Amino acid sequence: MEIGITGLGRMGAGMAERWLRNGHRVVAHNRSHEPIDALAAKGAEPAYSINELVEKLQAPRAVWIMLPAGDVTEQMILQLIPLLEPGDTIIDGGNTMYKDDMRRAEMLKQHGLNYIDQGTSGGVWGLENGFCIMVGGENELVSRLEPAFKTLAPPDGYVHCGPVGSGHFVKMVHNGIEYGMMQAYAEGFEIMRAKKEFNLNLYNISSAWRYGSVVRSWLLDLTVDAFKDDPDLTSQKGYVDDSGEGRWTIHAAMALDVPAPVITLSLFERFHSRQPESFAAKVLAAMRRGFGGHAVKKAQ
Amino acid sequence: MEIGITGLGRMGAGMAERWLRNGHRVVAHNRSHEPIDALAAKGAEPAYSINELVEKLQAPRAVWIMLPAGDVTEQMILQLIPLLEPGDTIIDGGNTMYKDDMRRAEMLKQHGLNYIDQGTSGGVWGLENGFCIMVGGENELVSRLEPAFKTLAPPDGYVHCGPVGSGHFVKMVHNGIEYGMMQAYAEGFEIMRAKKEFNLNLYNISSAWRYGSVVRSWLLDLTVDAFKDDPDLTSQKGYVDDSGEGRWTIHAAMALDVPAPVITLSLFERFHSRQPESFAAKVLAAMRRGFGGHAVKKAQ
Amino acid sequence: MEIGITGLGRMGAGMAERWLRNGHRVVAHNRSHEPIDALAAKGAEPAYSINELVEKLQAPRAVWIMLPAGDVTEQMILQLIPLLEPGDTIIDGGNTMYKDDMRRAEMLKQHGLNYIDQGTSGGVWGLENGFCIMVGGENELVSRLEPAFKTLAPPDGYVHCGPVGSGHFVKMVHNGIEYGMMQAYAEGFEIMRAKKEFNLNLYNISSAWRYGSVVRSWLLDLTVDAFKDDPDLTSQKGYVDDSGEGRWTIHAAMALDVPAPVITLSLFERFHSRQPESFAAKVLAAMRRGFGGHAVKKAQ
Amino acid sequence: MEIGITGLGRMGAGMAERWLRNGHRVVAHNRSHEPIDALAAKGAEPAYSINELVEKLQAPRAVWIMLPAGDVTEQMILQLIPLLEPGDTIIDGGNTMYKDDMRRAEMLKQHGLNYIDQGTSGGVWGLENGFCIMVGGENELVSRLEPAFKTLAPPDGYVHCGPVGSGHFVKMVHNGIEYGMMQAYAEGFEIMRAKKEFNLNLYNISSAWRYGSVVRSWLLDLTVDAFKDDPDLTSQKGYVDDSGEGRWTIHAAMALDVPAPVITLSLFERFHSRQPESFAAKVLAAMRRGFGGHAVKKAQ
Repeated sequence: MEIGITGLGRMGAGMAERWLRNGHRVVAHNRSHEPIDALAAKGAEPAYSINELVEKLQAPRAVWIMLPAGDVTEQMILQLIPLLEPGDTIIDGGNTMYKDDMRRAEMLKQHGLNYIDQGTSGGVWGLENGFCIMVGGENELVSRLEPAFKTLAPPDGYVHCGPVGSGHFVKMVHNGIEYGMMQAYAEGFEIMRAKKEFNLNLYNISSAWRYGSVVRSWLLDLTVDAFKDDPDLTSQKGYVDDSGEGRWTIHAAMALDVPAPVITLSLFERFHSRQPESFAAKVLAAMRRGFGGHAVKKAQ
Repeated sequence: MEIGITGLGRMGAGMAERWLRNGHRVVAHNRSHEPIDALAAKGAEPAYSINELVEKLQAPRAVWIMLPAGDVTEQMILQLIPLLEPGDTIIDGGNTMYKDDMRRAEMLKQHGLNYIDQGTSGGVWGLENGFCIMVGGENELVSRLEPAFKTLAPPDGYVHCGPVGSGHFVKMVHNGIEYGMMQAYAEGFEIMRAKKEFNLNLYNISSAWRYGSVVRSWLLDLTVDAFKDDPDLTSQKGYVDDSGEGRWTIHAAMALDVPAPVITLSLFERFHSRQPESFAAKVLAAMRRGFGGHAVKKAQ
Repeated sequence: MEIGITGLGRMGAGMAERWLRNGHRVVAHNRSHEPIDALAAKGAEPAYSINELVEKLQAPRAVWIMLPAGDVTEQMILQLIPLLEPGDTIIDGGNTMYKDDMRRAEMLKQHGLNYIDQGTSGGVWGLENGFCIMVGGENELVSRLEPAFKTLAPPDGYVHCGPVGSGHFVKMVHNGIEYGMMQAYAEGFEIMRAKKEFNLNLYNISSAWRYGSVVRSWLLDLTVDAFKDDPDLTSQKGYVDDSGEGRWTIHAAMALDVPAPVITLSLFERFHSRQPESFAAKVLAAMRRGFGGHAVKKAQ
Repeated sequence: MEIGITGLGRMGAGMAERWLRNGHRVVAHNRSHEPIDALAAKGAEPAYSINELVEKLQAPRAVWIMLPAGDVTEQMILQLIPLLEPGDTIIDGGNTMYKDDMRRAEMLKQHGLNYIDQGTSGGVWGLENGFCIMVGGENELVSRLEPAFKTLAPPDGYVHCGPVGSGHFVKMVHNGIEYGMMQAYAEGFEIMRAKKEFNLNLYNISSAWRYGSVVRSWLLDLTVDAFKDDPDLTSQKGYVDDSGEGRWTIHAAMALDVPAPVITLSLFERFHSRQPESFAAKVLAAMRRGFGGHAVKKAQ
């Protein structure tokens, strides 16, 4: 089928390449031009402006947006609205908050336009392995674009989750789970490393765990790679960012009255990693000093 | 090589069968006789008593114990001591606490006997997939028995972790990680299920996550199976046991001053699942009642 | 000074009574009339409508709103706007989200009206003990109304926290802390109760803790009252509500990248108390069943 | 009554002084001599050796041990055994693990000696305020020594909890609760401090909370003192020790299948405060790097 895409970062470029390999016609746009040319060399139709992107597609169009969540994506949608025709569809393949999806779908409907949210997992490995694709949108519309979704995914790696918003909701929860799994491994490896008397080689252990153990996973495979060249992670700084979807998962859990201790603690551990010193710890230490009576204290 | 084993439960029987398939001579003992006969039919040498087990092996002997951790295993070791000869080796393949391993190795050394601890992961799937084998013991001794360990594991699924105790220590931490991973998935699925408006099918979603997603894992594969016939888990009671290794992992974390919030909370969530009503919750509710002033209250 | 108030629930009525006892002129309004008459009997000027409330006050007016947070308070403010004159002030003494305060202050400024947020702690005990009063608003304005704030509080129990929103922000965090303290006690009492062999009397123990111990507090005083008549809390259901401020505190912590494990877990424990069965626990139990191989499982 | 005491640190000296003020006869021993002389100046009978301590007391003797838990206390008990006579009683007022109490009581019973465990709370403030005293031991024996216990405590601040071990068990849980309360405050203050736009003065706020608020407590009083001279805690290092009783409380919770998330997380936050860098955070960061594909990665 015919596919338009704007945003040729690593995820977007990987998606476009999978489409091309499978015989789809891809019109590719990006803010800077090099990624367009790189993809054109692989068979894509280049579009050096949004106008060109829209013009080179036949109605009803399907335009994928692969941009950072938030304002950048929102602005792109606002730019596209006047250029598109009723019946055209915008597919947001980024990490948008699901409530924004629901709001946007309503907004686009006013212009006769369709909206689909696509959660995309797999990172840079998706180009070769295929991406796990989680889609939210109306049945008929999603069915029509299914060939494009299925090409992105490995066999059985595509799921139509439900109405608009549900694709990003499921992807969001997926990321929350990812946080928890990562933290579980991280705690385990720290415990093993702290047990100095056993002098454990974490590369050897994690390598063996890949085969036959209950904790084998793709995240473990990544960890093995990390330990390979540096089993003590000497050169690795312990500073851990978060992309926002963990927070949203916790917001959702709270809104739904669901206890989510593991996902939440995983986020908080990342906060810790970014604090040179905790003010809470200062308060605790100051209180403890108070027990000793150094502070002047009036009896209650 | 020649291998003795006592304890032909599912794990033990699976191990013995893998040895037989790979041409080892296996002398097999069990308290009840049916499992012995079943294994004899597959080529094992039957031993209907501990004495027979020892007699049918040539020194230096290697005797695997695959029994429940704790007293049962301890009693078996005490029975074996007078029957074995200096240079013989006992391998504990169960879920023993690593400090017990260290104590036993000392005790056996008094009798000229050797001790190896083998952490074994993989459950009933190990027979076909191979078990992940984590071994603790002296280098020379472990090397001598390596053919037996390697036969149990899939290629690259065997690791000699370090000195006595380290095999079970690593297996223990492995189980702690497993708790955390399981709880991460469980929270995610509960959040998705609670989002009624999206009416998410957890079987479809978890199935797609197996392919290309960041959270794919063997535990996820198991979960998919669970959702297959019962996507709402209607017939499943939410009562979750724990086998003890999670607790030991937390003990170890505390002894080593390592924060392990995710592993610990995973255990506590299991405690919750087993409480019909929480006394802590009663205390909270009673306090809240106090705010309303129903209780007679003297000002501080 | 002269004070208007709408919302004569327990908190509002208690505040009004403290003002009256200290010689302020109070014009009191409520949706239903009985609380008005009850307060009039104690010296308040009754106002049976909002119009009457405004008319009976001299400009510049100060009108306290003591209503449930959210829509009810918002509607009252919208009703008051056309009735008030430039220079008048609305003080929201309820549990409003601080961002709503900031939005409202902007909105009221368009009409020349002032806004102050007042966090109020102390429950029904406030009438006798005084309320702890945490105020957010502009310096000059807050100073002008200080006699009213100070009358509500015990000596030294009033604080001007900062700009608009800060009063409710501080009160919100106060409630988050309260959750954590309550949960700390609740866990401790559950541990003691579970230690059957010591047969501990929680009333006796909590009573003694009130005097000289490190954990003495007003919340402990309340707990003692709860244990007094029912040391096993036999008649108490373990179902714990939450008023929303705990959630907001966690939202704030996340927005500020502050780890707040204790406050968050305290909320999640309340969620637990309200779930007859946890879906997460069902997922865990189903996974564990999978280890046993009962489910049909394809090797990865 | 007549009281012997060994261990005149701040707690021990404070206890002895309270006894003296109330007319008890106190024979006081310490390893170094200055504290003995200081107490003798206040009316105590000095004992410069254990022998002298025992000799100066009339049977049946009551000897309080106020030493650091663990080996030091154990050695003192072993020294006392041959010096004491059947019917004499040792009271351990330190922070002993309750299982050690139970073991020691058995051991002393072999020699006809009695044992009582006394949990003591209140820190250096106990001298003036009185200590909260939690006692475990046999009824008749505890009754006989009650005058000494009651003198230590403020009115109503003494409780006989139950059999041997229960006094220290209750004190241990008390400390676990203390950890949770402290962490609750610490999180709240960190959230407030992080809210830069409100520029909150934590000394002013915590001071006001002492009066009328729901979170008022003795620990809050200490915190106010800490903020008094240094509201930003600039000069305070955020390094928080723990004395061991928090860990024991968590061990007890796990042994009793009681979820104790808040107490446990409070301990883990202290661990965090003592780690310059977390290895777990390094693992997380390394995994995240893996998503980006920088590491060499074989597809699963």
